[in-house]
Amino acid sequence: MRFTGSLAAAVAVLPMALLADPLPSWNDTEAKAAIIAFVDGVTTPGAETYVTPEDRIAVFDNDGTLWAEQPVYFQLLYALDILKQKSDADPSILTSDVLKAGAAGDMAGIMAKGEEGLLEIINISHGGITPEDFEAQSSEWLTTTPHPTSGLTYTQMTYQPMLELLSYLREEGFSTYIVSGGGIDFIRSFADDAYGIPPWQVVGTEGETTYSAESGTPTITKNGGLTFVDDKEGKPVGIMRHIGQRPIFAAGNSDGDFQMLEYTTAGEGPRFGMLVHHTDAEREYAYDRDSHIGTLARGLDEAGDRGWLIVDMAEDWNRVFSGKP
Amino acid sequence: MRFTGSLAAAVAVLPMALLADPLPSWNDTEAKAAIIAFVDGVTTPGAETYVTPEDRIAVFDNDGTLWAEQPVYFQLLYALDILKQKSDADPSILTSDVLKAGAAGDMAGIMAKGEEGLLEIINISHGGITPEDFEAQSSEWLTTTPHPTSGLTYTQMTYQPMLELLSYLREEGFSTYIVSGGGIDFIRSFADDAYGIPPWQVVGTEGETTYSAESGTPTITKNGGLTFVDDKEGKPVGIMRHIGQRPIFAAGNSDGDFQMLEYTTAGEGPRFGMLVHHTDAEREYAYDRDSHIGTLARGLDEAGDRGWLIVDMAEDWNRVFSGKP
Repeated sequence: MRFTGSLAAAVAVLPMALLADPLPSWNDTEAKAAIIAFVDGVTTPGAETYVTPEDRIAVFDNDGTLWAEQPVYFQLLYALDILKQKSDADPSILTSDVLKAGAAGDMAGIMAKGEEGLLEIINISHGGITPEDFEAQSSEWLTTTPHPTSGLTYTQMTYQPMLELLSYLREEGFSTYIVSGGGIDFIRSFADDAYGIPPWQVVGTEGETTYSAESGTPTITKNGGLTFVDDKEGKPVGIMRHIGQRPIFAAGNSDGDFQMLEYTTAGEGPRFGMLVHHTDAEREYAYDRDSHIGTLARGLDEAGDRGWLIVDMAEDWNRVFSGKP
Repeated sequence: MRFTGSLAAAVAVLPMALLADPLPSWNDTEAKAAIIAFVDGVTTPGAETYVTPEDRIAVFDNDGTLWAEQPVYFQLLYALDILKQKSDADPSILTSDVLKAGAAGDMAGIMAKGEEGLLEIINISHGGITPEDFEAQSSEWLTTTPHPTSGLTYTQMTYQPMLELLSYLREEGFSTYIVSGGGIDFIRSFADDAYGIPPWQVVGTEGETTYSAESGTPTITKNGGLTFVDDKEGKPVGIMRHIGQRPIFAAGNSDGDFQMLEYTTAGEGPRFGMLVHHTDAEREYAYDRDSHIGTLARGLDEAGDRGWLIVDMAEDWNRVFSGKP
């Protein structure tokens, strides 16, 4: 059952859903009704659409789906802050133009070398540290540093309606995973507190790590260099590596999530794909086809034919950030 | 609390444990008492050794720890059978001496090129297939093909005492993971049925996979080539990639598991490391330092100092295989 096929069922179950609203930050639009109808369908024993709890796997993109991603990915802002801290202590680490631009917060200079330049900044800011120390450091940063325009901390910029959706799915027997292009250790540093998602349910981009006991203390160290990029075609690959099973529910917001939704909804039986459309310039941001981050074009073009739900942030959500009631 | 420190406690709790024996295939030796004492320690609320369920992560090697691994790894026997089937249908795939040796079951010829030759056989026998089809094929093979010397099927050669240990730990709130040098998809094909371990709790060696929707059907394909080897130093790395948290309990049987036990037991708080020692030539096999498979030398030398439990298969188990009561 796809979104399109479930509208009638959605309307039928709406009154019952309203009695105990699992999604209070969602307006009573078709989007909310479609989600609830899908969940009712897969959780009703005896229904043709019933799915056993073990197979109720839901995957969520993170940036732009569970929290904001403008003006640039929060992980890049973190990397720049750490680069600046490190270079204040030891300026000799700034061995290239892009690293100098990074430490100075010069966005044009950072972007001048494209992905290669970003990787240089990530390697310096994320390397030479154990995953545990890295997670403590980024968790501290995410919960105390103010976002450049909203003034909220980054973890306050998670989306309240999506937090409710995660909780609702878990209460209905789903396992909820993050499948993000962001770094796996970065996301793990806040996902348990912010989303109730433990480290083993985070799939993300991975850097090279090594193990050594030579110092006397067995230690894993994050080195520079990426070993796996969990974006676009990488997302289904990451899902099969970590989860080993095709999900039945996938949520994203950009064309980087296209293949994850495509793979998820191509499976047999009931499937649900949804894209969060950033339409709310007043409360959050409005962007899609022409955005430098979170570009959404193919998804908008094909969602209708594929039966994917487009969530209109301005229309469908009565509250946006978890940190701003 | 390590094994050495828990002997006194072990003896103290033994009578209670016997009342409802969670490990009936274990003899009433120090090994069993040490395991039960550890579990009691981490699950008793208020105890200094108490560990919350979220942190009760237990990792198990597979070959030689949860099932047998002689005369060679079962996955290699599988690979040779599939290679033979494929080459019977199309002899032109045998493009090298090692592949010809593989199809002919000529072990000396297979081993002549070492790991490179084995990888060639794995690539041909494990490649060009979706993970789902691969798992169906290997599951069928594992549950119907007789082992060359025991006559049991491979899944009947899981160790009954270890199945009981897995169940016991899960009943006591642990999450149980496999962390194996074997292929992740191969293990997933039987781990849920054989061990009660779902696909997302299997960490293993990984091959390159790609995603494509070009044929019209979104498909993941296993290609040749390894992207991650989950053995020795790779085991702690694989644990942190997949689980994202250091376990408190690790079980292995060979020096390939040394780093996994080292990393696990170096953490703070109560930790447990154990090595299954193959001492039972009558019921299973007897091998350690000089074995071509499952070599155990450093583990035997250092287990005492490190507080790891050595399980003596002949002494500590009253039953070996799950399939042979």
